[in-house]
Amino acid sequence: MTPERLQTLWLHHEIDQRNAAYAAALDDKRYADWPEFFVPDGRYRVQARENFDRGLPLALMHFESQGMMKDRVHGITQTIYHGPYHMRHVVSPARVLEVAQEDGVEVVRAQANYAVFRTKPGSVSEVFNVGRYIDEWVRDAGILKLRSRLCVYDSELILNSLIYPI
Amino acid sequence: MTPERLQTLWLHHEIDQRNAAYAAALDDKRYADWPEFFVPDGRYRVQARENFDRGLPLALMHFESQGMMKDRVHGITQTIYHGPYHMRHVVSPARVLEVAQEDGVEVVRAQANYAVFRTKPGSVSEVFNVGRYIDEWVRDAGILKLRSRLCVYDSELILNSLIYPI
Amino acid sequence: MTPERLQTLWLHHEIDQRNAAYAAALDDKRYADWPEFFVPDGRYRVQARENFDRGLPLALMHFESQGMMKDRVHGITQTIYHGPYHMRHVVSPARVLEVAQEDGVEVVRAQANYAVFRTKPGSVSEVFNVGRYIDEWVRDAGILKLRSRLCVYDSELILNSLIYPI
Repeated sequence: MTPERLQTLWLHHEIDQRNAAYAAALDDKRYADWPEFFVPDGRYRVQARENFDRGLPLALMHFESQGMMKDRVHGITQTIYHGPYHMRHVVSPARVLEVAQEDGVEVVRAQANYAVFRTKPGSVSEVFNVGRYIDEWVRDAGILKLRSRLCVYDSELILNSLIYPI
Repeated sequence: MTPERLQTLWLHHEIDQRNAAYAAALDDKRYADWPEFFVPDGRYRVQARENFDRGLPLALMHFESQGMMKDRVHGITQTIYHGPYHMRHVVSPARVLEVAQEDGVEVVRAQANYAVFRTKPGSVSEVFNVGRYIDEWVRDAGILKLRSRLCVYDSELILNSLIYPI
Repeated sequence: MTPERLQTLWLHHEIDQRNAAYAAALDDKRYADWPEFFVPDGRYRVQARENFDRGLPLALMHFESQGMMKDRVHGITQTIYHGPYHMRHVVSPARVLEVAQEDGVEVVRAQANYAVFRTKPGSVSEVFNVGRYIDEWVRDAGILKLRSRLCVYDSELILNSLIYPI
């Protein structure tokens, strides 16, 4: 086994663990933990596939920094009036597409398919949002953090409105 | 690559393989194999998230030993009258949260999100039960077995009744 | 860590990556890439569980070579009139059941559970097809390719017709 292969195994392991921790934070409603998966100037977008495929910029959520994400979390937990629901993420093993050096920073480009199920009180669980994470990971004090996460979802029609991040 | 990292990779590999084998046993309807994933005094519970989050004890299924699980399997396969259905588990890569020594026993605490789809004869497949496995794994003759599996599911409302373990 | 365990880790890694790349090719509608996951005389079948369990041969799709798969791709993209839809695959980590030598060829037998979600324009995402990949992988110029992929799906009832491979 070459050192390169061991590095690859470890990197994939790290990414799958980070994806699982990210999912757990949202599913457990620990929303304050969510911005911590990003670097301070990290970017988070949720975009319909129709727009993504056509190169159109319109996105359902678009945050350009951890600060904007924290605002959103404040909105979710303190101010937005909405019917509550549970989320459950099932994320497949990630594909690592590239490990690149950019301006002295190592950037890992990875993608993973996800399915998010929603459960409203007193109701059955249903398919809520399925799509693909298109991610850029960088290291921050040794830990992989998102420089960018773009969630491209398949349905133009979101069941009611999307309140929580995906 | 440090020996610790290699150990971590191997442990995760083992757990994901065990989760996949567990899912395959149930999906293939090899119910007699199911209790074998547990140690003799293993515990299996299926609990609604509402109860789990509030620390309430009520569980939809609650078995305190392999013997009770075998009774259930007997019930499922021999005595309970129910409409048959297929199950299909999709389980995401597990998170390993802790490897602890307890009374000389190594206990691995891990969690994994799951989605179970149900298919009834002549019908389409539907979302049946989504949630999280909260597990304690121990080694029995070198093989990881469940000392405890707690399935916390999101929906209070189970489509019809839950016959088979999750 | 023994060399055998490292080999096992790497093999699992390769298979999960190939499964993820396969899913991405279909979900991204790069249908021309699909036959390339197979060896030239590779076999692809999509079969209902009812038939599979009874040992019946009837399959919804049955291709005996890359050439037949390319014909299908031509059909999908050029000639078949059908309502378009998006697919999204969520595939769980694979189980490797056997690594066998057959006539000097190394054959890896693996299985993985999958859920495919379908999204039609202007509609919500729905469970489309869930089941199990039963695979035989062989190496072709160092890369794992499918000698056989059998998709055994749980529902006899396919939502409308199945146009694209699974």
